[in-house]
Amino acid sequence: MTNGEVPTGGLTHLRITLSETAYVGPGRADLLELIGQTGSISAAGKAMGMSYKRAWGLVQALNEGFGRPLVESSRGGASQGGAQLTASGRLVLEHYRAMQDKTRQAIAQDVAALRQAFDMSGKK
Amino acid sequence: MTNGEVPTGGLTHLRITLSETAYVGPGRADLLELIGQTGSISAAGKAMGMSYKRAWGLVQALNEGFGRPLVESSRGGASQGGAQLTASGRLVLEHYRAMQDKTRQAIAQDVAALRQAFDMSGKK
Repeated sequence: MTNGEVPTGGLTHLRITLSETAYVGPGRADLLELIGQTGSISAAGKAMGMSYKRAWGLVQALNEGFGRPLVESSRGGASQGGAQLTASGRLVLEHYRAMQDKTRQAIAQDVAALRQAFDMSGKK
Repeated sequence: MTNGEVPTGGLTHLRITLSETAYVGPGRADLLELIGQTGSISAAGKAMGMSYKRAWGLVQALNEGFGRPLVESSRGGASQGGAQLTASGRLVLEHYRAMQDKTRQAIAQDVAALRQAFDMSGKK
């Protein structure tokens, strides 16, 4: 995960589970965002150090888990086609980023209090 | 982790990283809470389906990572002694539970909006 990385806000992992098959955490959100940015499952996976097979599997798990496509792709053999977020995919990503922001705000005082209590205030 | 479990509030994993060595997530918090309740690292680990060795290793990682003991134990060979939370341990646990509650409140509207958008409102 993100051990070793110390964000100022303290939040390193937020997973939201909506149903028995639908959840989103930082890795899934990053993959969705990168697919939206690159237009490619392969490029998005590569940016996260993932094989195409693994990135494709994650996209399938997202699409099936949410009961409708979050990512649409024209999978084309060697060319590996293009991909884009659907409106549903953008909705999930936007809400997830909003939830991260709201969580950082909600926990800020507790994070600060703990860092102060353990003399970690000087560390990032 | 907690896949398969669908809490009403939607939050299934919250990890807070305070420094390069100190973080707390749901598993560590549950272990601290159970040690406080049972007075025993072994019993707390067992309640979480963990070996004593693994539970003990986690306690050591917590104590070292936070730079002071969160759990004090009188490790006694076969008897495996007793254990209790220190004031620092109670502080970490209390702040973590508070952050979980605050996060659930902060994300409630987004969780509800996503469940509605994906027709998951009827599911737990």
